[in-house]
Amino acid sequence: MSGWTTLAEAQTMDAADPLRAYRDRFTLPEGLIYLDGNSLGALPRATPARVAAAVEAQWGHDLIASWNKHGWIEAPVRLGARIAPLIGAGADEVIVADSTSANLFKLIVAACQAQPDRTTILTEPGNFPTDLYIAQGIADLLPGRQVRTVPVGEIAAAIDGDTAVVMLTHVHYKTGAMLDMASLTMAAHAKGALILWDLSHSVGAVPVDLVGCDADMAVGCGYKYLNGGPGAPAFLYVAGRLHGRLRSPMTGWMGHRAPFDFGDDYAPGEGMAPFLCGTPPILGMAALDAGLDTFDGVSMAEVTAKSRSLSALLIAGIEQRCAGAGFTLVTPRDPATRGSHVSVAHPHAWEVCQALIARGVVGDFRAPEVLRLGLTPLYTSHEDVWRAVEMIAEVMETEAWRDPAYAERAAVT
Amino acid sequence: MSGWTTLAEAQTMDAADPLRAYRDRFTLPEGLIYLDGNSLGALPRATPARVAAAVEAQWGHDLIASWNKHGWIEAPVRLGARIAPLIGAGADEVIVADSTSANLFKLIVAACQAQPDRTTILTEPGNFPTDLYIAQGIADLLPGRQVRTVPVGEIAAAIDGDTAVVMLTHVHYKTGAMLDMASLTMAAHAKGALILWDLSHSVGAVPVDLVGCDADMAVGCGYKYLNGGPGAPAFLYVAGRLHGRLRSPMTGWMGHRAPFDFGDDYAPGEGMAPFLCGTPPILGMAALDAGLDTFDGVSMAEVTAKSRSLSALLIAGIEQRCAGAGFTLVTPRDPATRGSHVSVAHPHAWEVCQALIARGVVGDFRAPEVLRLGLTPLYTSHEDVWRAVEMIAEVMETEAWRDPAYAERAAVT
Repeated sequence: MSGWTTLAEAQTMDAADPLRAYRDRFTLPEGLIYLDGNSLGALPRATPARVAAAVEAQWGHDLIASWNKHGWIEAPVRLGARIAPLIGAGADEVIVADSTSANLFKLIVAACQAQPDRTTILTEPGNFPTDLYIAQGIADLLPGRQVRTVPVGEIAAAIDGDTAVVMLTHVHYKTGAMLDMASLTMAAHAKGALILWDLSHSVGAVPVDLVGCDADMAVGCGYKYLNGGPGAPAFLYVAGRLHGRLRSPMTGWMGHRAPFDFGDDYAPGEGMAPFLCGTPPILGMAALDAGLDTFDGVSMAEVTAKSRSLSALLIAGIEQRCAGAGFTLVTPRDPATRGSHVSVAHPHAWEVCQALIARGVVGDFRAPEVLRLGLTPLYTSHEDVWRAVEMIAEVMETEAWRDPAYAERAAVT
Repeated sequence: MSGWTTLAEAQTMDAADPLRAYRDRFTLPEGLIYLDGNSLGALPRATPARVAAAVEAQWGHDLIASWNKHGWIEAPVRLGARIAPLIGAGADEVIVADSTSANLFKLIVAACQAQPDRTTILTEPGNFPTDLYIAQGIADLLPGRQVRTVPVGEIAAAIDGDTAVVMLTHVHYKTGAMLDMASLTMAAHAKGALILWDLSHSVGAVPVDLVGCDADMAVGCGYKYLNGGPGAPAFLYVAGRLHGRLRSPMTGWMGHRAPFDFGDDYAPGEGMAPFLCGTPPILGMAALDAGLDTFDGVSMAEVTAKSRSLSALLIAGIEQRCAGAGFTLVTPRDPATRGSHVSVAHPHAWEVCQALIARGVVGDFRAPEVLRLGLTPLYTSHEDVWRAVEMIAEVMETEAWRDPAYAERAAVT
């Protein structure tokens, strides 16, 4: 284990971390090392009171008047504008609505319908399942459409005049690989195709510059690095130049120009409004709002730097401290091409993951053999990473993971 | 005002009300007469603690483990099974997911796709806007489909071999008229069409017997009489005989047979599962769960009887106590054909509504001239209705509504 960092060195890194104070914005269970904020972000300290206010002072006391009095009706637009600076979008290019899956549905259909002479939804095999499934459902729904998957390294070359939309996840949920948004967007545009980015594993943890990359569309998740709570509402982005050109197929009343006129005929609202559908989920919006507060005053450049520092330390720990334990690094070694989680393959990843959880180090497992460890710049410390590595080393050295109890299967994340 | 009830008589009716104790299950602001539970149900007394537990003990402390440990992943199915008895459905025929608008989208598309040789979505003009808008969006999306609207009295005769799906709202949001589900369903089936019922203004307030009526599909809202909170998740129903035959176009990962296998190819789950799409909104689910608790031990026959008793009293009050004030009853007089709200037309309905709200009687306005007063059997009392009528009479007799301040427009409900 020569060369592996000491606890004191990790603590020194934390002392120099400009984001260290932000950990206090979260409630983290005593003694737990939580490396799963890429699946479900931790609870912000301010969230319980915020949600309670929405429930008691707003819903309970002001009842229906809260739609105006407490800005409920504006929540999708207001929260979208708060997310926009985290992803390099204009404030009027992002709204919060529905789930990531539903937003993928709206945007892929919109992209296909806007280009009736292009038949293909192009993506990579092994993309996050809901992205693939939604695309497949659309191909079944719309006559003549198809989903084509090619390995991500061949995507740029595969885009052609038949490509309606390229759909990619910016940071891969399993491998942690981060794609080059600028060059892939340029490749799509060179062939006249639209591109849709899934930012679920990016937003709040890695740099994203949608406008700078000239991206067309994006979706993302509210409950990972945005700390919006389980099943938080998701967001979607459409470049301003495409507003009015892309049409959501889900023409619910919240996307209408004047929903409270209660007219019989649909007429889409301005800007992003037509990508709203039903009544917004206010309790989820309140929690997401509090989650976004955890980014108040935070420099995204510092978030990026911290993410890279944490993941570099974790990779070093796995490769140095746990050398010989049978792990293979899945996540790219170049920090510019990885997101904020580190994945390692191991033939017994499931049991190892369970053994770690039993010892208070919470990562997660992705079939068939990936142990995934998420690093949330706002609350994960270098000391957390150091202690997690030590625990992994212990579990591997003692072969504690061989306890048959850990083989039991009940994965949900 | 001869013949109009006295306060003592209203109180006597309350004393004999078998549901009177259930009012204590709700937090109602002191001094407010809330007649808008048909738009946003009142806050159940148990909800704040239930939501706080989901936020703090579950999300905050148990984090990602809560998906299994606290049954988050089962919430859509579990809550669906709780709603089922309120609408005469089998426990495995209802799930909670997304918004009413999104659920309408899934089911109308499914119905159209299942019957490719039938082109028409048949509904009534003046149906709730989102129902009409969603249908119009689908007609734009799917080649050869169209929306046809005919007055509701002519619907049965208009169903023909070209009708893919008849979509109707069981209790009309504006008029309060309740349709004959059994006969209209039979009329649809006689012509080989499917029928979809929107139960948003029915569920929890009036008798609904989906299985008894042989209904095919239904959707409904969680935030009205179910007291699930603002923007609560909605529900959808598909008759068991149609499971596997109707396919949701929104093939998100939660509808997959094995979502946590993370496979590349969509394969629908069993039963209602394919009508799930994205990750369920857990905070909204927790609040809806507490809302459903307000029905524990409640007889739906008593709910129906109370609803009719309250609305009969309100109609009598408007017609007797407020005679000459210019109101026209919009809601049907026959209790078997009305829901649980009473609507009256008045040329100055907006100002009257605002004047009443200023005096603590909260109803709502529906353009262009309807004052809508909702009666929630679990918490509205006959005394509430009596006091509301007296306030309406005062506002009309003194012409208090003529205050120009009440003409200002800011309606959102």
